[in-house]
Amino acid sequence: MDVLFSHADAVLMDDAGTVLKDAYVEVSGKQIRFVGTKRPEGFSGREIDCGGKVLMPGLVNAHTHVPMTLMRGYADGYDLQTWLNDYIFPAESRLDGRAVRAGTALGLAEMIASGITSFSDMYYFCDEIVEETVAAGLEANISRGMTNFTPEFDPKTHSGYLETRRLAEKWNGYQDGQIRIDASIHGEYTSGPALWRCMADYAMEQGLGMHVHLSETKAEQEECIARHQLTPAAVLDRYGVWNTRAIAAHCVFVTEEDIALLKERGVTAVHNPVSNLKLASGIAPVPRFLSAGLNVALGTDGVSSNNSHDLFEEIKLAAMLHKGVSHDPRAVTTLEALKMATVNGAAAQGRKAGKIAQGFAANLILLDFDRPHLAPCHDVLSHLVFAARGSDVVMNMTAGKIIYENGTFQTIDLERVLWEVRHYAMQKVFG
Amino acid sequence: MDVLFSHADAVLMDDAGTVLKDAYVEVSGKQIRFVGTKRPEGFSGREIDCGGKVLMPGLVNAHTHVPMTLMRGYADGYDLQTWLNDYIFPAESRLDGRAVRAGTALGLAEMIASGITSFSDMYYFCDEIVEETVAAGLEANISRGMTNFTPEFDPKTHSGYLETRRLAEKWNGYQDGQIRIDASIHGEYTSGPALWRCMADYAMEQGLGMHVHLSETKAEQEECIARHQLTPAAVLDRYGVWNTRAIAAHCVFVTEEDIALLKERGVTAVHNPVSNLKLASGIAPVPRFLSAGLNVALGTDGVSSNNSHDLFEEIKLAAMLHKGVSHDPRAVTTLEALKMATVNGAAAQGRKAGKIAQGFAANLILLDFDRPHLAPCHDVLSHLVFAARGSDVVMNMTAGKIIYENGTFQTIDLERVLWEVRHYAMQKVFG
Repeated sequence: MDVLFSHADAVLMDDAGTVLKDAYVEVSGKQIRFVGTKRPEGFSGREIDCGGKVLMPGLVNAHTHVPMTLMRGYADGYDLQTWLNDYIFPAESRLDGRAVRAGTALGLAEMIASGITSFSDMYYFCDEIVEETVAAGLEANISRGMTNFTPEFDPKTHSGYLETRRLAEKWNGYQDGQIRIDASIHGEYTSGPALWRCMADYAMEQGLGMHVHLSETKAEQEECIARHQLTPAAVLDRYGVWNTRAIAAHCVFVTEEDIALLKERGVTAVHNPVSNLKLASGIAPVPRFLSAGLNVALGTDGVSSNNSHDLFEEIKLAAMLHKGVSHDPRAVTTLEALKMATVNGAAAQGRKAGKIAQGFAANLILLDFDRPHLAPCHDVLSHLVFAARGSDVVMNMTAGKIIYENGTFQTIDLERVLWEVRHYAMQKVFG
Repeated sequence: MDVLFSHADAVLMDDAGTVLKDAYVEVSGKQIRFVGTKRPEGFSGREIDCGGKVLMPGLVNAHTHVPMTLMRGYADGYDLQTWLNDYIFPAESRLDGRAVRAGTALGLAEMIASGITSFSDMYYFCDEIVEETVAAGLEANISRGMTNFTPEFDPKTHSGYLETRRLAEKWNGYQDGQIRIDASIHGEYTSGPALWRCMADYAMEQGLGMHVHLSETKAEQEECIARHQLTPAAVLDRYGVWNTRAIAAHCVFVTEEDIALLKERGVTAVHNPVSNLKLASGIAPVPRFLSAGLNVALGTDGVSSNNSHDLFEEIKLAAMLHKGVSHDPRAVTTLEALKMATVNGAAAQGRKAGKIAQGFAANLILLDFDRPHLAPCHDVLSHLVFAARGSDVVMNMTAGKIIYENGTFQTIDLERVLWEVRHYAMQKVFG
């Protein structure tokens, strides 16, 4: 059914940062058909009065590992490598499809309730992730995290590569592009040149995106330079990895040369400020990305290192962290922080989304601004960045369909999911 | 009426970080009478079943300016001095008692709903702040921010000093200590030696606490050294300011010698990580405070530089920010971050509160853990620090009285407050 949002404060996410007061936004099918301050003629469908509420594009979580929702709060207080080797990898070795479905559905519920309409994921058990995402009604770019720890890489026998091919054939573009399959290289430090070349060529040939962890830790950066006499960004470039529509997650230790290279190749840097702080990795030089003109998106990373899928936290942190570090109160503006979470993330995913404009995807969220912590309201954009939180979201429409409204999930049986997490997955994975 | 919390996961905030499972916590009058895993005998009163919920001490917001809730989101993106001189001071010059009451009540509602039971405030219009706080049922240490911009300071005629005396006589210890009046020095850079000596002597003589902004910005630190050849901490010490039970807010640029001095004097450093980042001030060296044994509490600062009174944000940021900056994943532990927000803040206020233990103040909050973003639960303390948010608070009991429950305020008429903010204060102050 078509939907008309009326009397909304509509945050268009255009370059001027327009907040259209008392606006009408009409949705037809999966797209926005009309935006304006006059009621569109001839509308028939459901009208939603948005008085006291703010309508904005749904958020894009551009880097996560959604089944890791199962590991929320598991083994806090370690550095990345200890945390991975001693805690996360052993738990992951006990995962099965059912546990992955439970963790995925839980993470999706959390993302939906806090205003995310699309995400980019890197993990394994990707069929299960895709099927849960389709059922939940979110959009996603899904990638199979590719590693290769042997000197040789034979694409004819490498299970991850074969799985990526199968996934792409089965799911890429599914339901008008609700699901996209991206290629992936987990990271420079977990693979080698033969895999890089193979994945880059395959992604180019198929027109797939590419999802890579890049320069997350100092050790990763330094060990790569010792191995290759090149930074991770530079060595991956030698193999064509950045000739794709690529997402480089983290980018904490990239150099000025790396930034120029990523800009030239059109790579998106995904900023994960909570995860980078919590794992003691560091702080990505985001103001330098912005001044270089790099596309910057935001991600939560897996909630196991966050421990939340609430992208409003990342927006606020992205907006204030770099002010504090650089002593520059304009280091990242409110509009820049909101773009990272919307239109920049959509661009990274290759989607026409993240703006309220005719022809864009009808990925829209409503926030209730009639709450004490959002009063008074001098500036809607400022409130979205610095005062709102995921729990202020009262409606999530993805691809034209309302999947969450006033605390109720339309597509997820939350009781069942929580039972599966607590009574199946916890025993199977941690028991 | 006495209250028994049953079947709670009770976070005691003892030094071991105990989470007592399936606990009973009995409240009698304004205090906790019993804590244990067996039902107390002979209880009569209201029993609250806490299944699926976490009971913890109410949070202490150890540095705020609550009427500045009116300026939430007003003039973002400036450094501290520009923001103060060009925006905040002109708005403040238009404040009146009615606007202050509106802003205060709004800030109190926000604090109550996000689990704060006590706060330390520095502002003016203190009678109005006290009266609104008493009506709302929160506990508070209220101070009149004292400045003096002339070379001379005559206590017999200085209106702020006379007001502090009057406030202390009228309100200090009101209702079994629900309200305490602290002395205050706004900051080294906004006053001089005669005021420092006078306030220090007065606080000592009356047994009052002391509330001071200290070393918030680099300019403040450097200009003080140029003026006095001493840091702010050292010069204030010459006049006896730290011989009181003192709160030093911010402490971003304190030196090693300052830290040793504050420790020796028993001063509490109040960490305001959001405000310090947002105003581009910098990052306080909290791990050095902790290793020096300094008492560290948490504050939101005024929401005008935050823009929220949700102390859970400060807890999370305090726990992760210093990990990222120092590359040490154990820089601030979950237990340390929670102590800052509870028992350390209570100590800074001179209150026997912040723990669930017999004889401590019945300042208690309940969080609903049966929510997707808090599942699964491997570790309650980790969730309180990294996954919970103020909107998970479903009950606030302050001094034995439930003042908020399941979204309903028992002591604040929120509709009226919002009307006063939107229709009176906004016109008066910004119109």
